[in-house]
Amino acid sequence: MHHKITSTIKIKNLPTLEIIPNAKKELKKVRKKLSKIQDKMYAHGKYSVLICLQGMDTSGKDSLIREVFKDVNVNGVVVHSFKVPSEKELKHDFLWRHYIALPERGKIAVFNRTHYENVLVTRVHKSYILGENIPNVSKISDLDDAFYFNRMKNINNFEKQIADNGTIILKFFLNLSKEEQKNRLLRRIELPEKNWKFSAGDLKERKLWNDYMKCYQDVLNKTSTSYASWYNIPADDKPTARLLVARAILEALESYKDITYPSLSKDEFEQLSKVSL
Amino acid sequence: MHHKITSTIKIKNLPTLEIIPNAKKELKKVRKKLSKIQDKMYAHGKYSVLICLQGMDTSGKDSLIREVFKDVNVNGVVVHSFKVPSEKELKHDFLWRHYIALPERGKIAVFNRTHYENVLVTRVHKSYILGENIPNVSKISDLDDAFYFNRMKNINNFEKQIADNGTIILKFFLNLSKEEQKNRLLRRIELPEKNWKFSAGDLKERKLWNDYMKCYQDVLNKTSTSYASWYNIPADDKPTARLLVARAILEALESYKDITYPSLSKDEFEQLSKVSL
Repeated sequence: MHHKITSTIKIKNLPTLEIIPNAKKELKKVRKKLSKIQDKMYAHGKYSVLICLQGMDTSGKDSLIREVFKDVNVNGVVVHSFKVPSEKELKHDFLWRHYIALPERGKIAVFNRTHYENVLVTRVHKSYILGENIPNVSKISDLDDAFYFNRMKNINNFEKQIADNGTIILKFFLNLSKEEQKNRLLRRIELPEKNWKFSAGDLKERKLWNDYMKCYQDVLNKTSTSYASWYNIPADDKPTARLLVARAILEALESYKDITYPSLSKDEFEQLSKVSL
Repeated sequence: MHHKITSTIKIKNLPTLEIIPNAKKELKKVRKKLSKIQDKMYAHGKYSVLICLQGMDTSGKDSLIREVFKDVNVNGVVVHSFKVPSEKELKHDFLWRHYIALPERGKIAVFNRTHYENVLVTRVHKSYILGENIPNVSKISDLDDAFYFNRMKNINNFEKQIADNGTIILKFFLNLSKEEQKNRLLRRIELPEKNWKFSAGDLKERKLWNDYMKCYQDVLNKTSTSYASWYNIPADDKPTARLLVARAILEALESYKDITYPSLSKDEFEQLSKVSL
């Protein structure tokens, strides 16, 4: 999978546009297979899957989730959309609310925006972190690169912990171009049925595009690990982006050859054959 | 909807078999509509939906959930399967774990087995309740009909509370015949790929069939309310059962004429027209 990030990258060198012909049709096939393997994983009961989705506003996270998981049993997938932390959440360390949202064995959790917001939006808007009341962090100047690089190490350790205990982690950066974001925001303004999705906040964030890209670059370089890979997903064409994500998940799950339906022991089988109803 | 329970019923008078021709094809249409109305409800952001599913083992709860909600955005549905309560859960009142699983506004929660287990399985197996450590309830003889009827009132009050605050509640009893359960259990024994689903516990519960039916009868008669109706779903034919449930949900949601996409105020609209990107 050539979209997996395995060496140092620069955001501006990553493609945002890739078009796979028949991506919609192809996705249908892939998600049927995904549905089957999730059923098997559920019966097997040893692994769980954590899908992390990051991307700028309008990069297509919501609709990607809808389309990629359409055929997976709704009982097997849980979506968590992380917004601004509540007061209660701020009273815990920054990973706490993500930890308690992790998937049970046999299930898939999708994080729609993730624990990485703690080194993205809170790095672009440093003041947010002060609300966390961390000891010895009381002013903006305490929030230097070293602070954020340390957080990224915290995140790597967190992911190592859950990977070691059976969580398969896949992280996708929906890499949208600034030009295509403009088109998508304009559609929200022009089409009355899309008006409600438009938020003035999106425009403010758009002005900080370069700051975000710098932070994403650090994230991709410092938190792509052997146990939790980042994938760069060219996101200017939605059907292609969806297919690439679905394929990556399927490929990862298929590599676990031990995921099988449980079979009965000899004893259990003999017992079963004696059952009378 | 003639399956809604609106007057006193006897379980043995309720049909378990009903076959709707083309139920599969019909379900496809209904769930497309369900998907659209969920999207609208999500944007509207005022109502949530609680779907309660009860039924004996093999009544088809899991596969019904998979099929009925196939087209609804996975971000809009959360399924909770309630098993034996944990020690932590037993340290709270019996509704606590159900309360914290309730759906956010705009979303659908499906309870796969529900708070009604607290007046079903724990009424058939009275000893379970003693683990709850309720004051003045220390022996089986404390657990008389009055105790369970009071619990049902507690449940009605709980449902009234959430209904008053915007939760649309639909409760489905998947009414399976004892004969059809036998067929389904036999399939789990005979088909190797279904073996893992078979549990010896299911046989023990089957022996208590009549006790369960008596408890279900009380539940349906005492907790069918104007704000939280029970539906008797003939469950011997799976495609029909799925269609009946899907239709009931759609019908209920369509009756809320105020569920619409939010429209912008004049001010917001003017602001939008001035945006430059």
